[in-house]
Amino acid sequence: MLVSFAILDESESPLYVPFQPYEDIKQCEESKCIDSGLSPAEQVQQAKECLQSLDKSLDENFHRWTIMDYSRAYKSQKITPLMVAERLVSAVMQSSAPGTDMSFFINYESRDILKQATESTLRYERGEPISILDGVPIAVKDEIDCMPYPTTGGSKWLHKVRPCKEDACCVKRLRSCGAILVGKTNMHELGAGTSGINPHYGTTRNPYDPKRISGGSSSGSAAVVCAGLCPVALGVDGGGSVRMPAALCGVVGLKPSFGRIPYSGVIPWNWTVGMVGILAGTVEDSLIVYAAVSGGAEAQQPTMNQQPKLYLPMLKPSNQMSGIKLAKSKEWFNDCSDDIRICCLTALDNLYKCYGWQTVEVTIPDIEAMRLAHYVTIGSECAASFAHYLEKFDKSESGSDVRVALSVYGAFSSRDYLQAQRIRNRQIKIHEKIFGMADVIVTPTVGITAYEIKDDVKKTGELDYVNGASLVRYSIAGNFLGLPAVTVPIGYDKLGLPIGIQFIGKHWSEDMLIQIAYAMEALCKAEYKKPKVYYDLLTEI
Amino acid sequence: MLVSFAILDESESPLYVPFQPYEDIKQCEESKCIDSGLSPAEQVQQAKECLQSLDKSLDENFHRWTIMDYSRAYKSQKITPLMVAERLVSAVMQSSAPGTDMSFFINYESRDILKQATESTLRYERGEPISILDGVPIAVKDEIDCMPYPTTGGSKWLHKVRPCKEDACCVKRLRSCGAILVGKTNMHELGAGTSGINPHYGTTRNPYDPKRISGGSSSGSAAVVCAGLCPVALGVDGGGSVRMPAALCGVVGLKPSFGRIPYSGVIPWNWTVGMVGILAGTVEDSLIVYAAVSGGAEAQQPTMNQQPKLYLPMLKPSNQMSGIKLAKSKEWFNDCSDDIRICCLTALDNLYKCYGWQTVEVTIPDIEAMRLAHYVTIGSECAASFAHYLEKFDKSESGSDVRVALSVYGAFSSRDYLQAQRIRNRQIKIHEKIFGMADVIVTPTVGITAYEIKDDVKKTGELDYVNGASLVRYSIAGNFLGLPAVTVPIGYDKLGLPIGIQFIGKHWSEDMLIQIAYAMEALCKAEYKKPKVYYDLLTEI
Repeated sequence: MLVSFAILDESESPLYVPFQPYEDIKQCEESKCIDSGLSPAEQVQQAKECLQSLDKSLDENFHRWTIMDYSRAYKSQKITPLMVAERLVSAVMQSSAPGTDMSFFINYESRDILKQATESTLRYERGEPISILDGVPIAVKDEIDCMPYPTTGGSKWLHKVRPCKEDACCVKRLRSCGAILVGKTNMHELGAGTSGINPHYGTTRNPYDPKRISGGSSSGSAAVVCAGLCPVALGVDGGGSVRMPAALCGVVGLKPSFGRIPYSGVIPWNWTVGMVGILAGTVEDSLIVYAAVSGGAEAQQPTMNQQPKLYLPMLKPSNQMSGIKLAKSKEWFNDCSDDIRICCLTALDNLYKCYGWQTVEVTIPDIEAMRLAHYVTIGSECAASFAHYLEKFDKSESGSDVRVALSVYGAFSSRDYLQAQRIRNRQIKIHEKIFGMADVIVTPTVGITAYEIKDDVKKTGELDYVNGASLVRYSIAGNFLGLPAVTVPIGYDKLGLPIGIQFIGKHWSEDMLIQIAYAMEALCKAEYKKPKVYYDLLTEI
Repeated sequence: MLVSFAILDESESPLYVPFQPYEDIKQCEESKCIDSGLSPAEQVQQAKECLQSLDKSLDENFHRWTIMDYSRAYKSQKITPLMVAERLVSAVMQSSAPGTDMSFFINYESRDILKQATESTLRYERGEPISILDGVPIAVKDEIDCMPYPTTGGSKWLHKVRPCKEDACCVKRLRSCGAILVGKTNMHELGAGTSGINPHYGTTRNPYDPKRISGGSSSGSAAVVCAGLCPVALGVDGGGSVRMPAALCGVVGLKPSFGRIPYSGVIPWNWTVGMVGILAGTVEDSLIVYAAVSGGAEAQQPTMNQQPKLYLPMLKPSNQMSGIKLAKSKEWFNDCSDDIRICCLTALDNLYKCYGWQTVEVTIPDIEAMRLAHYVTIGSECAASFAHYLEKFDKSESGSDVRVALSVYGAFSSRDYLQAQRIRNRQIKIHEKIFGMADVIVTPTVGITAYEIKDDVKKTGELDYVNGASLVRYSIAGNFLGLPAVTVPIGYDKLGLPIGIQFIGKHWSEDMLIQIAYAMEALCKAEYKKPKVYYDLLTEI
């Protein structure tokens, strides 16, 4: 046995898939239920009706352009999608130039981007935009199939054995709303790390400090949103891979429940912990894209008769939800840097002062056993899923970290895997109890802010388990238990590096989570700072 | 990788638990839907109303006493449960005497049996029997918890580390119907074999020829029904363990769908392939006990909103179901001894001649890969489930076959396990297609009839993979895919050893299966032969 978990009782059976049957859970007071059978564009329209119609408040120092900003600009016809696309292409080139070398993208094709933008522009000229997403640039992590690009998974070889034949389901849905798919963002090789240090495609730099990592594995998706190139990007989160880079780059990261967003067309290197997630400049924008990509027959799970209903929260000018309770596990919560701890505690104080939301102290046992069980699970599933490819795999084509990871992944026994699934069952029950006491669990999103990229690891990959553990510490329940989670930027450390706070909800409670994130953001956004590397697409035209 | 399966496509994800969501499947024309919330005794009453009220036909050479025979005898008050119990206790002692040495039971307590029988007798005297099962002797495989006995699992050590604290759920249900639980039947050690050769508790001998095996692992449960000691016994079927001994002993073996009978209180040495099953002298009796133990909140599976409805078939004097189609895979079907093949083909001919039921030739690919995948699954789950016990396990306490099995079980990788679950998904889909073409799949139950017990294996356990493979060949879909299956005795080989035919249905189609089995039995029962070792409890009093 490679790993040893706690002693398990005979009544503790394995839970293989973190999927909860739908039941009428307490929905957010002001949520609306979306009819099944709507098209993605119709769901986006429903989301639009959930937004505030207020103008930007004047006391904001800085804000990123939102989907509604793009939509209004296009409708006014002063700015066209084609103009934005041209500016975007030049900004991406600028960002890749020697000296800047941000390594945002693995692949993008100017011609394809401009072609989509031209079509969108014609739709606006005819007065027939498909949705508020029409003409809005969206980037996609290079783990998700998106034509006409290969899907490298951050590697040099995977796309050669696994050709991309069509858009992933979530990409199809965005395209059907008129969004412009602007290319494939950089990522940690095979998603097997948290830093985003990629020896093949360059290391995505953090727009707040280009000497530092953007986090991973959805590195480029976080960084392009941070840098203003897109209001939204798609990522994939198998062990915090959306939330960690979102926190390090100071953007919103929303990872819905397991089973909410169709997974087809995402590199299937695991079956039970990976989920498509959304990186966005604002909570509002995460809601719009959440509405676009959620649900549909493709999200249906095999063991379900009935698909969970989709609820969208009616966002309020000042949040009016009363009585929200936030569960906090002190020792775990405090296991982070001083700046992060102080910033997150201040945020909780403010939630109490402004909304009356109370923090409830809880104990979550065996968090370390859950982390290990998750690692056994994701590793085993990757080894099985890729068994056929890995037979032909030349190890010298990968970074040192990936080579080590693949060796460990292949060494787990079936007993290890099954004990991990029993830990999953135990933790689901522990979390159910906590959700009996509170609406959400609150944690820092990561334990440290963005660290510096060392010169010597850029070409080899990095094995840094200490920083890796600090980054992933708070992410596991979202993946292993399939719970929805969201990170919101709430401030900066002494070096000016972003800090995020995470809210974890019960299964299918995305509407409440988004509402909570929106309320949190409202208290912090006046203090948001502009990154060092930033492209102001709408005003620079 | 210890095992190598077929190449799997990236769309082929694992199916971990063979559980189908309930949907309204085509039920048997004459089935009745049982209200949820009925007690076991009320469900038994419903089953009674499904039976024919005809007297025994006179042309039967031999028939075992049925539950209705017991019930009528008790109601007439000429015979009491206590009289039957006394005769039973003496018959069991007789069967255990040196020279006979049938090794039916691992544990039975005369005092406990007589106490239950006295209480039942008093109920009849008061004119208040609980159900038609009141006073009926039922034996339980020593893998199922049943007070006041330890649950040995056929081993010398398991009950020492895993004490039996209360009745298993299925036993509770039988007890609540008034049945007399008469002890714990012998079994293959840890259920890890198909012969029933047990070096610790003696090898259960076949009542049709005591030189031969009874089959396993529910050896004693099949043999006591065969020998007339009980009309019904409970077994557990993780890889044919109910159906194989039933076929070798010439009795009915019914293994319902995964999820139909509560599993709690059965030794949990696997989570996804083991099911409680019923061994009975007649199809009628299997229906009554099926009604007693099925359903209830305890059978609910975690991923289900809704429990499948329980349907019971209205048994007809001459079966009137028209248009039944039987799927038969020629090469597989024929992979058995000549006597078995001829006997099963004759049965199919008779079904066609008497009922017009047609046989449809089908191909079921990768049956060998499925067998291997099942073996990896049951072995891995056993290794995980028993990890804690096996640490303290002294190998010298087990037979050679069990020692080898446990070593192999511990050697599978997590990748092997996951690939096996992908094979499960593939086979579920293959079988769904077959059930689009036919109502049931028909096979011989086993590939050989009961073979002789060699003297030198009685004390060591036996490693006979050739005979083992012949026995288990047709059982796997019932366990690995969770499909209901039933075996019915249809004749004898040249040596007078019983032969069974198996029908495999789609998930939740037990009502149709029982009806089909009943129709099959009706064509064969006039030819049933009395075993060499037989106790005629009702007439010998």
